[in-house]
Amino acid sequence: MRSWVESANAPGSVFPLNNLPYGVFSVDGMRRCGVAVGDMILDATALEASGILRADRAQDVLQDPAWNQFMALGKPAWSAYRKGLVDLLSEGAEHSVRPFLVAMQGARLHLPFRVSEFTDFYASRYHATNVGTMFRGAENALPPNWLHMPIGYNGRASSVVVSGTDITRPHGQIMGETGPRFAPSERFDFELEMGAVVGQPSQGPLSVAAAFENIFGYVLLNDWSARDIQAWEYQPLGPFQGKATATSISPWIVTCEALEPFRCDTPMPEVALLEHLHAPGPMLYDIALEVTLTPEGGPESVITRTNYSEMYYASAQQLAHHASSGCPMRVGDLLGSGTISGPKRENRGSMLELSWGGSEPLVLEGGEERCFLEDGDRVVLSGYAQGNGFHIGFGECVGTLLGARL
Amino acid sequence: MRSWVESANAPGSVFPLNNLPYGVFSVDGMRRCGVAVGDMILDATALEASGILRADRAQDVLQDPAWNQFMALGKPAWSAYRKGLVDLLSEGAEHSVRPFLVAMQGARLHLPFRVSEFTDFYASRYHATNVGTMFRGAENALPPNWLHMPIGYNGRASSVVVSGTDITRPHGQIMGETGPRFAPSERFDFELEMGAVVGQPSQGPLSVAAAFENIFGYVLLNDWSARDIQAWEYQPLGPFQGKATATSISPWIVTCEALEPFRCDTPMPEVALLEHLHAPGPMLYDIALEVTLTPEGGPESVITRTNYSEMYYASAQQLAHHASSGCPMRVGDLLGSGTISGPKRENRGSMLELSWGGSEPLVLEGGEERCFLEDGDRVVLSGYAQGNGFHIGFGECVGTLLGARL
Repeated sequence: MRSWVESANAPGSVFPLNNLPYGVFSVDGMRRCGVAVGDMILDATALEASGILRADRAQDVLQDPAWNQFMALGKPAWSAYRKGLVDLLSEGAEHSVRPFLVAMQGARLHLPFRVSEFTDFYASRYHATNVGTMFRGAENALPPNWLHMPIGYNGRASSVVVSGTDITRPHGQIMGETGPRFAPSERFDFELEMGAVVGQPSQGPLSVAAAFENIFGYVLLNDWSARDIQAWEYQPLGPFQGKATATSISPWIVTCEALEPFRCDTPMPEVALLEHLHAPGPMLYDIALEVTLTPEGGPESVITRTNYSEMYYASAQQLAHHASSGCPMRVGDLLGSGTISGPKRENRGSMLELSWGGSEPLVLEGGEERCFLEDGDRVVLSGYAQGNGFHIGFGECVGTLLGARL
Repeated sequence: MRSWVESANAPGSVFPLNNLPYGVFSVDGMRRCGVAVGDMILDATALEASGILRADRAQDVLQDPAWNQFMALGKPAWSAYRKGLVDLLSEGAEHSVRPFLVAMQGARLHLPFRVSEFTDFYASRYHATNVGTMFRGAENALPPNWLHMPIGYNGRASSVVVSGTDITRPHGQIMGETGPRFAPSERFDFELEMGAVVGQPSQGPLSVAAAFENIFGYVLLNDWSARDIQAWEYQPLGPFQGKATATSISPWIVTCEALEPFRCDTPMPEVALLEHLHAPGPMLYDIALEVTLTPEGGPESVITRTNYSEMYYASAQQLAHHASSGCPMRVGDLLGSGTISGPKRENRGSMLELSWGGSEPLVLEGGEERCFLEDGDRVVLSGYAQGNGFHIGFGECVGTLLGARL
């Protein structure tokens, strides 16, 4: 699929015409909804106002700079709008929307949607096994419930920030040999995750198939984690301040429609799942993921490579479980996949696993060693699905760690 | 303090002139902000529009039927508005606002504010000791971190409903002898709590004194809990679907100003708290609390009586801890105190404790026994602070349990 926006056709373009992810941008301080195509952003807010392409005939949904109202329209509207975009941007179409294109370079990107609530799961078997082995020993690595349901906890929506936002090393209560102290975290970490964006509301139990239809798209997600704060606080009620500092997401929501060709199966469950958690078809996606770490002034190192298809539970199963006891799920809910680790050391999705709890330092390109993140470290998550001659890219989810301050 | 609204002066009036709590009501389908006085509601939305009493000169804050915008104005505006209300409603004042009074009887009450996020704590030592003893034995009852910080978890804002909303017994994943099943909860419970309403934003560490100033007021809160779902899911990431069904709150926010005369000290900490969690003054309130249970068609039984002053940690300490690792706190955040149990059996704030995990059934007035809640049970939380010749009442937080359905 070629576009008259030439940069969209470049080999390796992150945002070809097959992608068309949704974001929020500003060039003059005014936030607007936009669609990425090549190295340009199509101003969807202005396009709606012009009448050239509207998601809904009766009401404006893109004047509010967030994709929530658009998502609330539902799947038929999502498809029709995407088709409209493709028609307008395809090679051969009139260049009628050229005045609505803005260079991505120079635009500032914001959170693409208002996060209603944020839930974080724990759904990679490799990650859960690694962390469980470190915390509880190899024989008790997987909690008894883990193979029966996607274990998750409610996170903090107010902690979600857009890629590019600097992260300040948090203070917190940390247990030491002489008792607890309030001090900067010394074991600050990233977690490589995908975030599923819930596009339709539901209340009470829903099937995995229905849950799949309710998911609008995906972003990259970095669940910044203070391991020392978490270790001291998490019993018995789970992670709290150890996960409260920040949660970075990539600025572009890649839609499920764009990802449709890349669907793949969840693994055959080791223990049969209860019926309401059965995956009725391929629910994961083949998305190659990579994390780089760049110390201040130092060279970049690729520190992990993995794939979203390594997960044990898919987002649709997580959403089905989430709603199962009657919890109202809303447009704009964000579901973190859980850390995406693969089978080998080089596929691990957090410093905790890469350095095995700080006991096996990672050696970076410049020769520096890392157990956890140091002040000035820049962490970049990136990901893409590889099509036949094209990429469906997510762009980057970037954060630089600043030193603690009170 | 006497009002020309005579019902406010009645002995035992829940809503005398000293109280003036804030809610949202409708009589004709249109939601409006209101202030309770005696058996009347003052239509604050209409009053703002009329110009007689405005919280802010420059902007409307009460046309949106929720008290969030009002709270965002901050404490000086809260005080000035309250003073304005007292002036208008005091005995001797002209009855200029009589046309803005609506009979409470016949008005429907709604959530008084938009809940931004909901956090639930675990801050009664009696409750934590009771539950810990049942789950882990008397020697390990209190987790090691418990005396060092207010332990809490992020709950689900979308689960919060106003008093009077029926509660449906949830399905969920429950572990049995032959493995897990998806079935209606058989150990469904209430939890007696107070909810602190956060009225001012903060980001990052703040002192307990500052946190105290950021709290706008309190509601009664029932954290409905499915103990069997919770028991199977909560390790290692904490309560999730066991707490997702519903969280009921009373419809009137009783302000900290109204509660000011009833402040009392948190207990002397058994272990010295870190400085950022020190209570600089009395941070709890003397609020008598009671729960009744009424089976369908049966007589009402008082099943517990306790007092908010029994808590180990106050809401201001919880808020200070919550913000400590950089978590942005927002206007409209709701902080559940945790179950408020007292020292004796008759002071316990949940069925789990009252029936000691189901092993010591409670005998109700009609002779029926209860370990957990049965379909048709009506649970009513109520509370008040006793002044010299007046009550500061919270009204009721009511919910009736309906049978499970899928």
